[in-house]
Amino acid sequence: MPALLGSHLSRTLRAFQIYGANTNVGKTIFSTILAKASRRHFPAETVFYLKPVSTGAPEDADDGHVARFTDADAAVRAECLLQYRDPVSPHLVAVEPPSDESLLATIRQRIATYGCRTTTPSTLLLETAGGVHSPTLSGTSQADLYRPLRLPVLLVADPRLGGISASISAFESLHMRGYDVEGVLLFGDAYYRNDGYLGEYFAKRGIRTVVLPPPPERVVGGVERDREAMREYYETQCADEGVRDMLVELESRHARRIDKLATMADEAVSTIWYPFTQHQHLTADAITAIDSAHGDFFQTYNNTNTRAANEKNKGDDVVLRPTFDGSGSWWTQGLGHANPELTLAAAYAAGRYGHVMFANAIHEPGLELAKTLLGSLSGGRLSRVFYSDNGSTGCEVAVKMGLRASRARYAWDHTQREAGVIGLKGSYHGDTIGVMDCAEPGVYNSEVEWYRGRGHWFDFPKVGMKKGRWIIEVPEEMRDDLGQDVAMESLADIFDLQPRANSELGKKYQRYILKTLERLTQAEGRRFGALIIEPLVLGAGGMLFSDPLFQHTLVATVRANPTLFSPAPTTAAPDATSWSGLPVIFDEVFTGMYRLGRLSAASFLQAEADISVHAKLLTGGLLPLCATLASESVFGAFLGDEKKDALLHGHSYTAHAVGCSVARESVRALVRMDERGEWEAAKRDWRREKGEARKGEAEVWSVWRRGFVERVSFVADVDSVWALGSVLAVNLRAGDKAGYSSNAAQGFLQEMGSRASREWNVHARALGNVVYIMASQTTGVKTIEVMQEEIVKALGA
Amino acid sequence: MPALLGSHLSRTLRAFQIYGANTNVGKTIFSTILAKASRRHFPAETVFYLKPVSTGAPEDADDGHVARFTDADAAVRAECLLQYRDPVSPHLVAVEPPSDESLLATIRQRIATYGCRTTTPSTLLLETAGGVHSPTLSGTSQADLYRPLRLPVLLVADPRLGGISASISAFESLHMRGYDVEGVLLFGDAYYRNDGYLGEYFAKRGIRTVVLPPPPERVVGGVERDREAMREYYETQCADEGVRDMLVELESRHARRIDKLATMADEAVSTIWYPFTQHQHLTADAITAIDSAHGDFFQTYNNTNTRAANEKNKGDDVVLRPTFDGSGSWWTQGLGHANPELTLAAAYAAGRYGHVMFANAIHEPGLELAKTLLGSLSGGRLSRVFYSDNGSTGCEVAVKMGLRASRARYAWDHTQREAGVIGLKGSYHGDTIGVMDCAEPGVYNSEVEWYRGRGHWFDFPKVGMKKGRWIIEVPEEMRDDLGQDVAMESLADIFDLQPRANSELGKKYQRYILKTLERLTQAEGRRFGALIIEPLVLGAGGMLFSDPLFQHTLVATVRANPTLFSPAPTTAAPDATSWSGLPVIFDEVFTGMYRLGRLSAASFLQAEADISVHAKLLTGGLLPLCATLASESVFGAFLGDEKKDALLHGHSYTAHAVGCSVARESVRALVRMDERGEWEAAKRDWRREKGEARKGEAEVWSVWRRGFVERVSFVADVDSVWALGSVLAVNLRAGDKAGYSSNAAQGFLQEMGSRASREWNVHARALGNVVYIMASQTTGVKTIEVMQEEIVKALGA
Repeated sequence: MPALLGSHLSRTLRAFQIYGANTNVGKTIFSTILAKASRRHFPAETVFYLKPVSTGAPEDADDGHVARFTDADAAVRAECLLQYRDPVSPHLVAVEPPSDESLLATIRQRIATYGCRTTTPSTLLLETAGGVHSPTLSGTSQADLYRPLRLPVLLVADPRLGGISASISAFESLHMRGYDVEGVLLFGDAYYRNDGYLGEYFAKRGIRTVVLPPPPERVVGGVERDREAMREYYETQCADEGVRDMLVELESRHARRIDKLATMADEAVSTIWYPFTQHQHLTADAITAIDSAHGDFFQTYNNTNTRAANEKNKGDDVVLRPTFDGSGSWWTQGLGHANPELTLAAAYAAGRYGHVMFANAIHEPGLELAKTLLGSLSGGRLSRVFYSDNGSTGCEVAVKMGLRASRARYAWDHTQREAGVIGLKGSYHGDTIGVMDCAEPGVYNSEVEWYRGRGHWFDFPKVGMKKGRWIIEVPEEMRDDLGQDVAMESLADIFDLQPRANSELGKKYQRYILKTLERLTQAEGRRFGALIIEPLVLGAGGMLFSDPLFQHTLVATVRANPTLFSPAPTTAAPDATSWSGLPVIFDEVFTGMYRLGRLSAASFLQAEADISVHAKLLTGGLLPLCATLASESVFGAFLGDEKKDALLHGHSYTAHAVGCSVARESVRALVRMDERGEWEAAKRDWRREKGEARKGEAEVWSVWRRGFVERVSFVADVDSVWALGSVLAVNLRAGDKAGYSSNAAQGFLQEMGSRASREWNVHARALGNVVYIMASQTTGVKTIEVMQEEIVKALGA
Repeated sequence: MPALLGSHLSRTLRAFQIYGANTNVGKTIFSTILAKASRRHFPAETVFYLKPVSTGAPEDADDGHVARFTDADAAVRAECLLQYRDPVSPHLVAVEPPSDESLLATIRQRIATYGCRTTTPSTLLLETAGGVHSPTLSGTSQADLYRPLRLPVLLVADPRLGGISASISAFESLHMRGYDVEGVLLFGDAYYRNDGYLGEYFAKRGIRTVVLPPPPERVVGGVERDREAMREYYETQCADEGVRDMLVELESRHARRIDKLATMADEAVSTIWYPFTQHQHLTADAITAIDSAHGDFFQTYNNTNTRAANEKNKGDDVVLRPTFDGSGSWWTQGLGHANPELTLAAAYAAGRYGHVMFANAIHEPGLELAKTLLGSLSGGRLSRVFYSDNGSTGCEVAVKMGLRASRARYAWDHTQREAGVIGLKGSYHGDTIGVMDCAEPGVYNSEVEWYRGRGHWFDFPKVGMKKGRWIIEVPEEMRDDLGQDVAMESLADIFDLQPRANSELGKKYQRYILKTLERLTQAEGRRFGALIIEPLVLGAGGMLFSDPLFQHTLVATVRANPTLFSPAPTTAAPDATSWSGLPVIFDEVFTGMYRLGRLSAASFLQAEADISVHAKLLTGGLLPLCATLASESVFGAFLGDEKKDALLHGHSYTAHAVGCSVARESVRALVRMDERGEWEAAKRDWRREKGEARKGEAEVWSVWRRGFVERVSFVADVDSVWALGSVLAVNLRAGDKAGYSSNAAQGFLQEMGSRASREWNVHARALGNVVYIMASQTTGVKTIEVMQEEIVKALGA
């Protein structure tokens, strides 16, 4: 049985969706012709006709029409799932309409049944009702409702006056939802001649058009004569050469699509140079061919999986399997794949501007996004937005900003002695060499010829749940200063920073940090120009959940002790929004935009950065854009009479309108979800006392259930686990081979990625012995629950 | 008079375009209601009604209808420009249809006339024919034809069965072309109730819907009674509160739009941190607010310019002026702003995939683009494609590739002694610190704290036309070795590399390069890991047109002398596609994709790179994407058993589907233009002997006319000039202040950017004393000709 979330593609059953450019353009008549012609040209094949929802008198029902005029041919099976009498838009007729999910599930079950009924090739014609955007029972547009199936489309165009426009707009609505329109059919009209114009329009796009004469006009009261005339009409049309050619082409497109999916991985292995990938032993088997994506799911072709699936489900020949996007498309995904609102936002900006140069210019999406970001992210410090293309370039900008601000205030000569950064062990800010230098030396970056770590990196206490208890784990080498691991009552307690700051541990943190900074700057005489951290969680370094109090204390200590960094600052911090000690950079590329459950991860630290960097989820998971925000005191360091004093950084597509427009829509959508309480159930689950939030308390929560996390924490192979926002991170006990290439993690991922018995696979990645599953901000509760069960199973619990 | 290319926005004349979701939905009736209601609610105002093209019997013509039912109110002026009898799609009726340009020009003239006729506020209703995509006389879709005007849209929705779908699809077609739909109107229908569904749909998008009862049915033969009934109907409807509220809202939207345009620059100056900009003296006057863009033109609001325009054209109150995008939107633009095909390609990919993670995965746009690039750019060497987000990151990748390949072959210990690059003076590869290090030290990068130039940079002979002659200018300090400047017969002769290589100058180049490399590596003992150059033209360094022979010889010399770089290479170059000496990197980010007239600028050098980098025009000027191509021998250096040996680089949005899809469409469109000979006239102009191309000869040409370039070369203030592809670069004689902030250049740009007498302004930038104007690959001959005249004037010739 195809999975509930699958887009349909099977080897034997060629399925097409019949969409109409308008109502009453002849969808059922063309379906009948196609059914009959299919039987004629492929006599060994069965044709299935399915009309999910039909309105109108039962005696006129479309399935009946198809059955009647295929002359009770046993190899043509027509059915309708839901029949309503009134010929109005379906959303108005249903007293108790089935939900979109259940309608789609029913359709999928029917398709599966058809697939099982025959082992020889067959065709399915799935006819929609009305036009492409006609609402279905729930009110959802058909084009959106049926999108997860993503069947190839046969579009019945409109031959009437105005029909050119209707047909092209319908095509555009389908195309922008990622449908492949594979054929166009319409009745000829000698007067309006839409077929000529449309034929040319679609030919340019590689789409064949078939034009047939319209059916004979009905005779009033002459049912039998009507039927006879229609029969004659059908006999003639189903022999039409154009129809035959289209059927042949559709068959070959179907075969080519499958061939392509089967060969893509091979071609990729010999053509693509993959990011972060050792190609030495890379084979096509390890490459997932993605046919499309929707919501949280890829539709994937995978030799191995499909073979396994085929063996298990004999007679089934499903080519695509749904695969949960468990890395949140490399940490960017928030609002679901193929989100029509983001597509529209992108298309609008492309259609209004394309890309327009940004230096010395301003456009609405760039300005409005800047205002939105400052308005929602700044607590008073941040006042400027600098745009670049991704987190790495945005952090390069941040580092340039921070170092210059220090140099300007402390009046250093950087050509004599270079300033480094203060950071945390395991930090990562991108792959361009400047920000690679902000990460401590290690086995990987040492292989990059020009890498040179410039700074000092603190180790830090990490948070995780172990056997049902939240533990703050103190690294071995810090125990002399900080003492042993600490158990906390609840996750929320860990974020009670004010009382904790005055606790014994808080004071130890402060003493330790101050002592270390004094040693570095005074005893060792080192110079530092910025503090750069990923607030709360260090992602690429291995999903390291820092004790927020440690980061809070680090920021506070740096700010409270400016003399550490320059014995005699030439310029004092002029006001409360100015940086003090060192400019503090928060790299929120991974942690921000609700990834960890809040708009800004800075709020977990109760500290605002002087410079903060935002990317990935900023565009909801559609395309690259980065915004580096800075305070006026940082900005001021670049003012001068000479151009050379300015921040001479900029990419050609800086503030590209498409990215800004999508980002603005994404940020708004995320904030709206929060304001509407869409995560309320999850939040409630994570509250100290189940129930209402404490007044004024910013919450700590996750879409992963609290009970599930506790359960995982007891699994034998699990060292610790945590969940925040949409991220679940499981630290597996590494056997002999810890680190990046942990076997335990690979075993888990393989288990998640290939079990054919499951309804879907999971495409995820590990970081050493840490496996993480990242949902989007819109993942449904049901999906989470099923995932949780599967994760527990895959962990071998 | 508004310029020919202008989008319309004036202070007093509120213009709206009436689009229909289908034909026969009541556009004219709603126009009449709006006209009458407008007169009632704004009694001091005039209403203009314009139907550019009307089909049907003259007695039923829409302008007549409006005139009749506004009761000869002198303040309602209705007209139709073209009237055709048959009620069919306009493209079928015209015997000799006017071109799109002339139709649009006529409409603009009418609008200008209306603007002049009244100094009090007034309204224009410009009614389209049929549906949004109904073809106009030439066959162009109306939505595309009228797009340059970008009037706010009032969409008349379809109340009939299927009308929900038709209305939403029509909206999507308009929205993706960058139209602002500001109101929706439709007739109520108690049975189908589309108004409820659509009202909610549009309300979610901030668009008000007005629902009115349909007009009375016509009585057969009862013309007078019909008219009476219609009169009554109109009297009632024009008093409707919903209509009044919509009119009030439209007026306030109009005012807000202008306010926004007027304040955007101010807001930008206090919010945005601009790339490459010294903010110290930056005022709002220097910021261009861009309302939209189409083809080669921005539609811009500019205080100063508009003020000047207003003074010159008394009584006119045009808010937007067309401005030629003279920096080709920072060197990215190739296929025109708001190109519908690129928008569709972007929207399709967004709708099919969103962004899907690329590590261990493959999708069609990513694979197909890789194959397209390798197929069209590789001469046998390049075999792998690595994706990143922009030219800077792509060059970081290239440098990592090159350095590692050298280290692997020469078995260096890079931690002991670092390898630099060999490059050219004035080179630029991006703003991330790693590739900044590939450019020689200078006044600007020295201000970046972590910059450290790592390499050697050759000066080189430069090409330009001086007083009608093509000169190869030898830098002062190279004259001892290379001799004096050389005059060449023609631009084409400069590219005759084979004969030139054997000339005296060719041999001098070779000796000079070899001698220098020997000194660096042997006498000075320096280590180099890659040669990195921008083939032919060094863009950001000041549009430096290198003698192609010099670059050709540099590549050849490096390749022919591997022992220079390592006395005893541990691995010999295994075959003809392997790199030799040093991996050669061509940074084609600026020079490639037909910017200089050829798909690859490498072909000018008759040399193929081992690594080449492509961005900017790669996506036709829509959004950021970069492809770094590499040879198998470079790729091989990263193979090993350990992950750490791999190229550990990757951005989250690597190979994002939207970018790959747009890039594939762009590359195809550019190659198609070339194959179809769309630049043939320009090519012919630049041939040695006017006429046919020499067989097998790759051509050197520009969209700028040869005679014009010659003319410019004689201008007193011009030192030299060149044109290649779509780029024109004029080297002005620098007075006292040469370099980045040249006054001469600023004067020229100001002249181009602000002359109110011209039909359009030019938004361009200078590099020191070099001014350049960059057209797109689709700029029309007429535009070029006008620009040429304006350039000559602005140069003061």
